[in-house]
Amino acid sequence: MPAERIRDHAVPVAAARRRLLRADRARQLADLLRHQVRTGGFPGGALPLEGAIGEEYRVSRNTVRQALDLLRTEGLIERQPGVGTVVVSEKYSHGLDRLQGLAETLHEHGDVTNEVRTVGPVTAPAPVARRLGLGEHSDVLCIERLRRLNGLPLSLDLTYVPMDLGTGLLGCDLEHTDVFRLLETLAGQPLGTAEITLEAVNADAHSAAVLEAPRGSAVLMLERLTHLADGRPVDLEFIRFRGDRIAMSGLLHRAL
Amino acid sequence: MPAERIRDHAVPVAAARRRLLRADRARQLADLLRHQVRTGGFPGGALPLEGAIGEEYRVSRNTVRQALDLLRTEGLIERQPGVGTVVVSEKYSHGLDRLQGLAETLHEHGDVTNEVRTVGPVTAPAPVARRLGLGEHSDVLCIERLRRLNGLPLSLDLTYVPMDLGTGLLGCDLEHTDVFRLLETLAGQPLGTAEITLEAVNADAHSAAVLEAPRGSAVLMLERLTHLADGRPVDLEFIRFRGDRIAMSGLLHRAL
Repeated sequence: MPAERIRDHAVPVAAARRRLLRADRARQLADLLRHQVRTGGFPGGALPLEGAIGEEYRVSRNTVRQALDLLRTEGLIERQPGVGTVVVSEKYSHGLDRLQGLAETLHEHGDVTNEVRTVGPVTAPAPVARRLGLGEHSDVLCIERLRRLNGLPLSLDLTYVPMDLGTGLLGCDLEHTDVFRLLETLAGQPLGTAEITLEAVNADAHSAAVLEAPRGSAVLMLERLTHLADGRPVDLEFIRFRGDRIAMSGLLHRAL
Repeated sequence: MPAERIRDHAVPVAAARRRLLRADRARQLADLLRHQVRTGGFPGGALPLEGAIGEEYRVSRNTVRQALDLLRTEGLIERQPGVGTVVVSEKYSHGLDRLQGLAETLHEHGDVTNEVRTVGPVTAPAPVARRLGLGEHSDVLCIERLRRLNGLPLSLDLTYVPMDLGTGLLGCDLEHTDVFRLLETLAGQPLGTAEITLEAVNADAHSAAVLEAPRGSAVLMLERLTHLADGRPVDLEFIRFRGDRIAMSGLLHRAL
């Protein structure tokens, strides 16, 4: 530590400032490239050569390298010897404009399968009972699923459902069907609205292991309380999406 | 590494399974407590004693301890000697239901101030020019701001604005006013819609330092292309929210 401090002091101010500016520019470039990765902007998943990127964005090759390093750390791209830099993790968009299950949303991209890790009735913790409009100490069905798209882990979902619908869910094909679809069939009416909250959290060791992601990797966490069309809350969920595989997109309006 | 593997093999299967179940339960408890932290569910910011939490949620004290550890790692709570466990980081909700600037959204919580780190014209990188509907090699105003609420860093925002509006922005009070509000004044019309994408990413070293957050901490990243009411795109932004301080909330509808 002292050695590093001494070295830092020895660096001329101008050089330190240059390094700082480069870090800013690298992040700014990484943000633009990330958008292209996410929207399929690199045909065949191959990124241009460093020199070409530098020319297009009018930045030095060192800045390009640092930007690519950032995206590599995020697990989006990789440098492959003899091939160049390629996109290795496709990022899928989950809609913010409409309430949809994962399989519904991603049906164009492949098959969503669910590994059911836990399923069974539990006594609802007080906040769960409250939010689902149930009496204290009511039972709820608790389901934990690891959800995969074409075999790759996407999310770890914990779901609480009131037992009148939960009992029916126990007999359903939870491995291949969205809970949303099953609930609509069992309730005989469509879903209505859902209150959602999105947060970014670092994956704890256990969640990371289940999602096959590095420990501490950023997770997009979705908390969702879904109501039937008649207004009754029937589905409280805590969903951890792998940050490198899922983004949420939508359209906001200025006027209410 | 080999030592650890040996030790793992030596653990009886039942004990390993117990540990796994406890990790699941701890995460599930942490999710419920996180909701209460975020929604002000602990009066005075003080969490109940471990024993009381265990009783309410019907889990062991070890599970409670592990859940509190998870929330402490996320920077939401802290154990204070002689006081107990307290909420240390308030988490603010940014709306997904309406397009609003940060100061507009958080005005009830205090003053948003912006430290302008960069402001000036740059040649628009090709994807920026394209998305803002500008000709190749047009200039855009590039603004980077560190945004604080009551002095605490909340987000690092990079903004690109076409120069016809950008020149006007240069003379405005960017330190105390949302760009949204300034754009509406300069353009003489309200904003219309914005296409947004939310992602969870790990903060790179430099962003983390600017946001005064631990390196690698989860960041809620918002990419937003905002249009005037007449449809013209005028504001492309890349915003990094500190994951421990901002969540995005809204209401989704099942029917379109």
